[in-house]
Amino acid sequence: MSLAPPAPHRAEIEHLVRRALYENLGQPMPRTVRAPNPLLVNVSARHCHLTPQAVETLFGKGRTLTPMKWLYQKDQYAAKESVTLIGPRSRVISNLRILGPCRDLNQIELAFTDAISLGFEIPVRNSGNIKDTPGCMLMGPAGFLELPVGVIRAAPHVHMHPDDAAFYRVKNGDYMKLRVGGACGVTFDRMFVRVSPDFKLEVHIDTDEANACGLSPVTPCELIK
Amino acid sequence: MSLAPPAPHRAEIEHLVRRALYENLGQPMPRTVRAPNPLLVNVSARHCHLTPQAVETLFGKGRTLTPMKWLYQKDQYAAKESVTLIGPRSRVISNLRILGPCRDLNQIELAFTDAISLGFEIPVRNSGNIKDTPGCMLMGPAGFLELPVGVIRAAPHVHMHPDDAAFYRVKNGDYMKLRVGGACGVTFDRMFVRVSPDFKLEVHIDTDEANACGLSPVTPCELIK
Repeated sequence: MSLAPPAPHRAEIEHLVRRALYENLGQPMPRTVRAPNPLLVNVSARHCHLTPQAVETLFGKGRTLTPMKWLYQKDQYAAKESVTLIGPRSRVISNLRILGPCRDLNQIELAFTDAISLGFEIPVRNSGNIKDTPGCMLMGPAGFLELPVGVIRAAPHVHMHPDDAAFYRVKNGDYMKLRVGGACGVTFDRMFVRVSPDFKLEVHIDTDEANACGLSPVTPCELIK
Repeated sequence: MSLAPPAPHRAEIEHLVRRALYENLGQPMPRTVRAPNPLLVNVSARHCHLTPQAVETLFGKGRTLTPMKWLYQKDQYAAKESVTLIGPRSRVISNLRILGPCRDLNQIELAFTDAISLGFEIPVRNSGNIKDTPGCMLMGPAGFLELPVGVIRAAPHVHMHPDDAAFYRVKNGDYMKLRVGGACGVTFDRMFVRVSPDFKLEVHIDTDEANACGLSPVTPCELIK
């Protein structure tokens, strides 16, 4: 692992500064400032999760993933390695990014736009729930891997720490709404809530969802019940 | 025009039948049944509108558009003719459908996903408002046409007759919301309202918006203020 450890995210520092300013000025804090953590809305482009065995099949005996870029969730990264996905009509997506570390299942997450262009019919699922989903073929520099199942559109979801869950008054498995402002404002009415002490507050939407609401770094976003 | 005139839309007939059933049974009508017209939510895939002059430049002197398929709005159709759009990085979209009849301006409507894949930065605009938008090159069988402006993402909007406007208590230029149910339910918070005696009640969203909410023919949709 040659990648330098991640620095605190800009949003985390801004959140602390904003809180300190309100405290020092003795002003009442708006809800977003009172929240234990800043709300990050990040876009998951199509990607896959692989088992260690799958990585060896695709990249060669003894090969492991190489972190290229840290993601916001602790220890999660985009790997240098990518694969080619071959769909049911022999259409392909090249350079499908692998996210690390390895998991105990193989899962491909596409947006509906990707799936339609490949000729797939894929279901909306929470991560890990891949029973009866379509499979596909992956191609790496060292070989092919046929997956019998595993291609999904990930349901939009929010990761949060128990502190965030307490603040928003939700529990693991609940649904919340994400209101996105701007010229083409959209409210995502079914954000699946995932709570764990390992999680940081972060919404994951896919590229279709981000493009539908025209999400940019300055688009106002609000998590509501 | 060799295309047979359009038959009433299935949704229109269903709406009349549903009303008659409630009336005959003497049951109180739900709001959707009381509405003067059924709500159609249709997906506008990328397309263009052209002037008669543009059609001649692209397809040849004296050429006009040939209706291939009627759209829901009166006299509007998808033409047999299509063009190739050449974007700023020489990437292309082939078979860009032309909608007829011709208009007095040239306008290309793309989803953000299309624009990103072409390398465009395009603004969200209401149809017809193309000042200071990016241009592009179009290619047809008879020639090229360089457009200085005209490439937009159409803002999501709803066409309606004054009867519908009265029922929903809105006026031309207002904004409404479209609530879409289902597994990845979404509320589009800014549907621009366009009222005209020539219009039939119909929401137009683009492919990103439709894919974000997983719109299918059986997805429940509701227009709210």
